[in-house]
Amino acid sequence: MKNIFPQGSAWINGEFVKLSEAKISILDWGFLRSDATYDVAHVWKGKFFQLDKHIDRFFKSTEKLRMPCKLKRNDLKKILAGCVKNANLDNAYVEMIQTRGMSPGFVRDPREATPHVMAFAVPFGWILKPEDFEKGLDIFLTNITRIPPSSVDPTIKNYHWMDLVTGMLDAYERGHQTAILVDENNNISEGPGFNIFSVDKSGISTPDHGVLEGITRQTVINLAKELGLEVDEKPIPIEMLKSSDELFATSTAGGVMPITKVSGKKIGTGKAGNITRQIHKLYWEKHTDPNWTLSVEDILK
Amino acid sequence: MKNIFPQGSAWINGEFVKLSEAKISILDWGFLRSDATYDVAHVWKGKFFQLDKHIDRFFKSTEKLRMPCKLKRNDLKKILAGCVKNANLDNAYVEMIQTRGMSPGFVRDPREATPHVMAFAVPFGWILKPEDFEKGLDIFLTNITRIPPSSVDPTIKNYHWMDLVTGMLDAYERGHQTAILVDENNNISEGPGFNIFSVDKSGISTPDHGVLEGITRQTVINLAKELGLEVDEKPIPIEMLKSSDELFATSTAGGVMPITKVSGKKIGTGKAGNITRQIHKLYWEKHTDPNWTLSVEDILK
Repeated sequence: MKNIFPQGSAWINGEFVKLSEAKISILDWGFLRSDATYDVAHVWKGKFFQLDKHIDRFFKSTEKLRMPCKLKRNDLKKILAGCVKNANLDNAYVEMIQTRGMSPGFVRDPREATPHVMAFAVPFGWILKPEDFEKGLDIFLTNITRIPPSSVDPTIKNYHWMDLVTGMLDAYERGHQTAILVDENNNISEGPGFNIFSVDKSGISTPDHGVLEGITRQTVINLAKELGLEVDEKPIPIEMLKSSDELFATSTAGGVMPITKVSGKKIGTGKAGNITRQIHKLYWEKHTDPNWTLSVEDILK
Repeated sequence: MKNIFPQGSAWINGEFVKLSEAKISILDWGFLRSDATYDVAHVWKGKFFQLDKHIDRFFKSTEKLRMPCKLKRNDLKKILAGCVKNANLDNAYVEMIQTRGMSPGFVRDPREATPHVMAFAVPFGWILKPEDFEKGLDIFLTNITRIPPSSVDPTIKNYHWMDLVTGMLDAYERGHQTAILVDENNNISEGPGFNIFSVDKSGISTPDHGVLEGITRQTVINLAKELGLEVDEKPIPIEMLKSSDELFATSTAGGVMPITKVSGKKIGTGKAGNITRQIHKLYWEKHTDPNWTLSVEDILK
């Protein structure tokens, strides 16, 4: 099995371990009920980007699940930085997880379980590789409904991904690169691990309902403001998506990524658009700004 | 950690192991995306009850997830029976699981992963203990929507339980024993691990939409027929639930269990009802019927 693991490192049960040794019991409710939350920060050239925002959201998610994280912020930072250092990665994808844990004797009551925190670092992953930026993403618009907020609170980052995975499989089988799901009102929601932005004559928009409150999504809203542009958070009907001048995806896994085709049909000119380009440029410039970053080495000092 | 494990035994990575040693990698998509399916059969006095029906559903679920189980039926039976024998249990809850597995190098494409089958046996668990049968269950009717079929196919038995867990926590905090969720049309759906049946002047009914195709649910429909009673699969509005003469829950974890209170309000007389009683009796009689059972020893011969 070992050779299938990426370069990486983990922290679990209070210890740093090899990635291949990071395992949870099959009786952990985090597995058997997907009763868990997580967050993913990234490290670029040795520096975490907006780490505190990810930790804020992670802590909030654990509170909403009525299992507030017991780790102190600085200890969590040291754990995450330790994973990156042990993995010997300059550019990393760093995931923190808290599961409900196990209930003694396998009783049904989640309140009996002791929550279980773990973390790991792996090489930075791209939904769209930088060398493919100009070509952009070719996405498949599915008719799958993203799990609605009336069922699962999307502001708790969670592993309920069967709808997203089904979308990915549908997309791959048709030769597309990834998928977009709709919401229960048949407006655009999100894709597997990313939010969506549309640009047209009315300006820049992003769905306001049933989506993860993405850190990169919020960053883009802020960066747009810096560029003198407003982002409207509002429903995006399917027709609006298809007739957009530009479309882009935002994610920790790749930043700001142009979407140039929807279900085979070109969006705008079929190339990365101007607004997308400006926001993308500013997004990566912030990766050297000390106000936005925190170096792995400094955390471990 | 060891002392918190129940009596039990597991099979994973092709081997029988102690329950405390049964672990999956934190990079398994079964954990990180809840990309997994499972089924639970039970053993009563050394005999599996309707084992083939659980295996049928499990195989179908793996097919629907586009990762058809590669184990042969008889091999899977020997694994499940082996878990029970190794755990030294006469009455057991036996879970089979297939996860998507890990993608080499942590690539996003689920098709790259090698599915991972595992199983475990633990002591038989009751949603309502036999000694509490007369008292029945006191459930909390939540306004949480069960994840709808437009998002996740409920006929694929899955671990997307955050809605159900939230319901359980809400119920426990209010002093109830478990919860019922509604569907997207605000009719009754199901609870954490069980289906619902209502009995009133119009007869016996059970929700037809957005619920797990429970094996015990189907068994009850068949047993009712044997008793000369018809079960209508149809929407059950909240008002109908509350004004039922009898209510009961069905689950592998306890069989047929009277629900005598909904959100504190008595159902019917507030005691186990007659229809519930008849079906419950017949259900347990079938546990000694060779047409419905298969002994652990015979499987292992």
